[in-house]
Amino acid sequence: MTYKSGPHFLQIPGPSHVPGRILRAIEQPTIDHRGPDFQALAKEVLAKVKPIFKTESPVVIFPSSGTGAWEAALVNTLTPGDKVLMFETGQFSTLWCELATRIGLVPELITGDWRHGVDAAAIEAKLVEDKSHEIKAVCVVHNETSTGVTSNIAAVRKAIDAANHPALFLVDTISGLASADYRHDEWGVDVTISGSQKGLMLPPGLGFNAVGPKAMKAAESGGINRSYWDWNHQVGMNRDGWFPYTPATNLLYGLKEACDMIMEEGLDNVFARHERWSEATRRAVKTWGLEVLCQNAEEHSPVLTAVVMPEGHDADKYREVVLDKFDMSLGSGLGKVKGRVFRIGHLGYFNDLMLMGTLSGVEMGLAVAGVPHTKGGAQAAMDYLTGNA
Amino acid sequence: MTYKSGPHFLQIPGPSHVPGRILRAIEQPTIDHRGPDFQALAKEVLAKVKPIFKTESPVVIFPSSGTGAWEAALVNTLTPGDKVLMFETGQFSTLWCELATRIGLVPELITGDWRHGVDAAAIEAKLVEDKSHEIKAVCVVHNETSTGVTSNIAAVRKAIDAANHPALFLVDTISGLASADYRHDEWGVDVTISGSQKGLMLPPGLGFNAVGPKAMKAAESGGINRSYWDWNHQVGMNRDGWFPYTPATNLLYGLKEACDMIMEEGLDNVFARHERWSEATRRAVKTWGLEVLCQNAEEHSPVLTAVVMPEGHDADKYREVVLDKFDMSLGSGLGKVKGRVFRIGHLGYFNDLMLMGTLSGVEMGLAVAGVPHTKGGAQAAMDYLTGNA
Amino acid sequence: MTYKSGPHFLQIPGPSHVPGRILRAIEQPTIDHRGPDFQALAKEVLAKVKPIFKTESPVVIFPSSGTGAWEAALVNTLTPGDKVLMFETGQFSTLWCELATRIGLVPELITGDWRHGVDAAAIEAKLVEDKSHEIKAVCVVHNETSTGVTSNIAAVRKAIDAANHPALFLVDTISGLASADYRHDEWGVDVTISGSQKGLMLPPGLGFNAVGPKAMKAAESGGINRSYWDWNHQVGMNRDGWFPYTPATNLLYGLKEACDMIMEEGLDNVFARHERWSEATRRAVKTWGLEVLCQNAEEHSPVLTAVVMPEGHDADKYREVVLDKFDMSLGSGLGKVKGRVFRIGHLGYFNDLMLMGTLSGVEMGLAVAGVPHTKGGAQAAMDYLTGNA
Amino acid sequence: MTYKSGPHFLQIPGPSHVPGRILRAIEQPTIDHRGPDFQALAKEVLAKVKPIFKTESPVVIFPSSGTGAWEAALVNTLTPGDKVLMFETGQFSTLWCELATRIGLVPELITGDWRHGVDAAAIEAKLVEDKSHEIKAVCVVHNETSTGVTSNIAAVRKAIDAANHPALFLVDTISGLASADYRHDEWGVDVTISGSQKGLMLPPGLGFNAVGPKAMKAAESGGINRSYWDWNHQVGMNRDGWFPYTPATNLLYGLKEACDMIMEEGLDNVFARHERWSEATRRAVKTWGLEVLCQNAEEHSPVLTAVVMPEGHDADKYREVVLDKFDMSLGSGLGKVKGRVFRIGHLGYFNDLMLMGTLSGVEMGLAVAGVPHTKGGAQAAMDYLTGNA
Repeated sequence: MTYKSGPHFLQIPGPSHVPGRILRAIEQPTIDHRGPDFQALAKEVLAKVKPIFKTESPVVIFPSSGTGAWEAALVNTLTPGDKVLMFETGQFSTLWCELATRIGLVPELITGDWRHGVDAAAIEAKLVEDKSHEIKAVCVVHNETSTGVTSNIAAVRKAIDAANHPALFLVDTISGLASADYRHDEWGVDVTISGSQKGLMLPPGLGFNAVGPKAMKAAESGGINRSYWDWNHQVGMNRDGWFPYTPATNLLYGLKEACDMIMEEGLDNVFARHERWSEATRRAVKTWGLEVLCQNAEEHSPVLTAVVMPEGHDADKYREVVLDKFDMSLGSGLGKVKGRVFRIGHLGYFNDLMLMGTLSGVEMGLAVAGVPHTKGGAQAAMDYLTGNA
Repeated sequence: MTYKSGPHFLQIPGPSHVPGRILRAIEQPTIDHRGPDFQALAKEVLAKVKPIFKTESPVVIFPSSGTGAWEAALVNTLTPGDKVLMFETGQFSTLWCELATRIGLVPELITGDWRHGVDAAAIEAKLVEDKSHEIKAVCVVHNETSTGVTSNIAAVRKAIDAANHPALFLVDTISGLASADYRHDEWGVDVTISGSQKGLMLPPGLGFNAVGPKAMKAAESGGINRSYWDWNHQVGMNRDGWFPYTPATNLLYGLKEACDMIMEEGLDNVFARHERWSEATRRAVKTWGLEVLCQNAEEHSPVLTAVVMPEGHDADKYREVVLDKFDMSLGSGLGKVKGRVFRIGHLGYFNDLMLMGTLSGVEMGLAVAGVPHTKGGAQAAMDYLTGNA
Repeated sequence: MTYKSGPHFLQIPGPSHVPGRILRAIEQPTIDHRGPDFQALAKEVLAKVKPIFKTESPVVIFPSSGTGAWEAALVNTLTPGDKVLMFETGQFSTLWCELATRIGLVPELITGDWRHGVDAAAIEAKLVEDKSHEIKAVCVVHNETSTGVTSNIAAVRKAIDAANHPALFLVDTISGLASADYRHDEWGVDVTISGSQKGLMLPPGLGFNAVGPKAMKAAESGGINRSYWDWNHQVGMNRDGWFPYTPATNLLYGLKEACDMIMEEGLDNVFARHERWSEATRRAVKTWGLEVLCQNAEEHSPVLTAVVMPEGHDADKYREVVLDKFDMSLGSGLGKVKGRVFRIGHLGYFNDLMLMGTLSGVEMGLAVAGVPHTKGGAQAAMDYLTGNA
Repeated sequence: MTYKSGPHFLQIPGPSHVPGRILRAIEQPTIDHRGPDFQALAKEVLAKVKPIFKTESPVVIFPSSGTGAWEAALVNTLTPGDKVLMFETGQFSTLWCELATRIGLVPELITGDWRHGVDAAAIEAKLVEDKSHEIKAVCVVHNETSTGVTSNIAAVRKAIDAANHPALFLVDTISGLASADYRHDEWGVDVTISGSQKGLMLPPGLGFNAVGPKAMKAAESGGINRSYWDWNHQVGMNRDGWFPYTPATNLLYGLKEACDMIMEEGLDNVFARHERWSEATRRAVKTWGLEVLCQNAEEHSPVLTAVVMPEGHDADKYREVVLDKFDMSLGSGLGKVKGRVFRIGHLGYFNDLMLMGTLSGVEMGLAVAGVPHTKGGAQAAMDYLTGNA
């Protein structure tokens, strides 16, 4: 790749910047995954990752992408032909729905407009309707990476409870974990799905399932034919610090470091800084006269902001200008908003000055690309940050 | 873990030593997996990995363990209820058979004694018998990591051809690739399965399927319900340098470096040094008066040597002594040879002096653990190496 | 140290950000400094460093700080009691003068106001006056790190020539090399002094002397008692790729990488981006209503900008606020401007977005610290960068 | 450099193997050497390095080679024309003597045979003779890296005391520190000189002076013209965690890690394993029928073993064979034993199996190079190690 001076600004909503401390942990020599040093490491990591999910249930760690962890959640708890209720928050909920179909499930996707979070009332209505309890699971995305909308997971739980429905509750917080407030146990989630390359600040390569007791019970007796994704094997062997097949040892080194970093800082501090950057970013967008894709003030993602391009301007051409002139990667519009939005990631190993570099780059890019806008967005962000320093 | 002076001797048959050059490649900042730099990297890696398998067909790369790649090979090419013919070379062929059962296939496992490779004649007999072509695939392990026996893959191909049988030919060379001679195209293999943490010298976390045209055709129309493991998605997107989900970017950096290192040295040189270490090791074992598990001179693995413990001595206790006193990890006996054999890995980023350290450690461990043996094994290895320097 | 999210902004005028590529080079295993691999490395590095100085003369590399390289330049070319002519551009020229005194030379320091570069006319006048040629060397600082003033070295050369004076010409470009235009041969410099931790983007630990033929001749016959700093030993052994004592091998790995990076980009491109950042920074300072220490438009340093604090405000207290609130290190005022100026480093492995993060941090810090200023400095910089993207 | 499989065996007596843990520490981003994080680091390192020298006096750390630290010791404590008494233990004592001459001192070098340590009685005799106390310092090498002979420093101290002579006592333990027992305070040493790249397991680039009160007093009033090497500046600024010029920050990161590693293990354990490897090595040499250069059993260096080549065989040709065939660097004969001895380094980050690899490589090299010897040396070492596991 062409030489560029200075660090690349990787401002997509994940993979996020991997801190040197984590890269150096990953860089340690691989060890025997059947030896005592590994066993101690595994026990430590498996324990340390739980508070990140705010759960006391086991967290299963796969050498996989986040989508692998989606598949794992479904194949462990459901059987072919099972009906699952999903909500179209954006591209990732849509992909999850496709995945469910491919593996033999029968998803019902409640249509959404990609500008709002999950409509808990719609979920409740569907569940109330489902007298015979054909719906076996409710699957929602916590933080929609394609839209920058964060759904109210507690409200969905309440909806399920209000409908007095026995469906399992599966939540994808691949891009939300360790950036946006998330509470597996308190919110009564049965399976939480996540990945390594967002708030956990690791390279991609690990998928996670936090598995509550009801989900575990479903997995013990049922599930779709599976081997790699099988929880029973994992949880059984994890108890003693082992894995059923060779784990991604070096990423586990990094995960231990990531958990330590997050706990040193404190989850509440982590969440607060993400909220702060998100607010600053929205002020910039507003000043530019552009529109934030997310329309509900209570659902703005602390992780990323999706920005709607003015009519007649292609978001991907704009992104190319930014990459070329300012060495910054912005997220593209995915699926049905392709070319119409770009996304600014403001998550993970990041800080105020990186945010100012990022927003300045967005603003300079708008000018260079000839996208109509009002100057002063970065200044507005700065004013907000200064007032909350 | 307790501080130890000097590098750990990781002499299990994989994960193998990861060279600093590869660790430093992996340590580079994660990039946008949808950007042009990644695209260039992916194209390069996908091209560079093919000659390692000696194939011109596509090689699919999963963020997974090697067992994941097993599963991928099966779910892409077979349908539930399909009969597959397998051969019990040791623990890994046995596990593969269990996996096949779990995902709804009907494996027939030809019994073996764990001391020999695949019996091509037995395969042929079974195929000849199978007039109605119910057997859809023949699945064998090239290098049995649990026994140190390398099977003759060309002979199995001949057997299939002799039987004039249309079964697909699936070969696991997870621990053989880039250490033992292997030729996907020439040997008419339909799917080759491998992993990153052995001859490729990477940390664990990548699984591979080299997919020949017949297998690809089977996958296009058939296969078991799948999403993560689906080849069609992968190969289609790979063509342009993309992946259907977030790939393990940092391991791909390492893979590029590994391919470069292997090609700089030349595959034939790589194979030759593994053969040489294997011969030296066997001379040591013979001098100690111990037995090599592999009984056929033509099937000795160049990757590892499994050694039978004298009656009345526990291999795992011996291994603990070696780990404790000499900071060396040896491979344990797996499955039905647990406690009865130990395994010496001599693969990957390794050299003569590391081998001498290893064999000296084995010999010193035998003395310290009170295992009956004749001194001079390391000396015998040294004599061999000297004569072939 | 307390955990901070995101990368530290090290915006002092050196040490500058060390790129990962260089850190990874440095991290390679140390090799035998008397073996063939080292010899090849040394020859390569010693050749590659010359074009950075724009010289064909030898460049001597010491395991030392930049001040060590000052001392080396003096002790190799002068004898105790020799008179040397210096010019007070700021703190570093002052320290160099003190050093000269300590090692037995008799410096005459032409007084400066710390806001201008070297006055070539004043140098010429002194030399013209010195009929008996008692002045043995003229020593000036190219880029005054304490003030952000870059002197016209070609003009000083002209002054020496105009005076027809035989004095040696010694130039410190510790903080200028590989950031500000510099030409050892063309400008007739006899000894150029530099260090590793500025434009060369390395950690501190290497000192450099580019040694022209006249200086080398002086060193062969004269000089002050010396051993470590002795050029003759170095240059003699360097010819074959050796060093007279154990060199800082790992920093030499980094130096090779740094030379490659600089040459890949091209020196002119390197200089141009530094000039651009410097101009953008001054526009920010001007907008804030603050004063740049450097008073001559033609002498603004491309490497750093020193900013004068408003009367009644302490620069060091301000810097503490910036460090505490925005995790950015700014340079302190040194010597007689301590507390009265702060310095913004904009050099080396850096880019537009890092600069915008930096200037935003300076502006936010002014607000948080209650330093009177007009908002909009970062915006002004952005406007300039946009117009020159 | 040509690609080689497996790690290089760097078995010269320093630079020694740098552990990954230290390389990763060094690889951290450079920080502001005038900021609070650096200050905390410096205080910590300056405190942690003292117990390694077994002193409570200050230890001055230079960005330099070990030879730089020699020069520092002399220029701080002596004045031009001072007589110093030295003892020819080998090449490094000879070089130190040359250095003394170059900087204006008048060394008297007591002749040695390069096969024994310092003759304390000879020192005593010279001092007794020196009624007028013209000798201002006694300078000896603790561990002669060129010969593998370790001198009895306590005995030299006794000799000075017995002579009731006021000379300063300067000791070079560049290659002995943190490998061979050394006690600055207890042995009444005035200045101890060391370097980073041996027992401290760092890359080269740091020089050390442990400075006792008598030496410090001498430095305050006297010394040779100096600036870079000046202790007063260093010690004064070190008190608050600062350095008089830019320190080699990244090596200081490594030094902190090295001190932690050594103290985790315990100095006595460190010394014991070096003694053990040294004894094993000598047994190998004896079995080969070769001669150890060191002739006094009580003076064998725990750090390295110098081996005399049989008449008619060139040690350097032999070393080339070992490097070429077995990728191991052995130390060359230096100065007057060039070509006649080779040196085996067995120090630092090293272990039993690395030693066995090393000795096997030496033995195989003897065979390949056609050097007459008796086989079985490695076996003899193994027997010794086994008996002492």
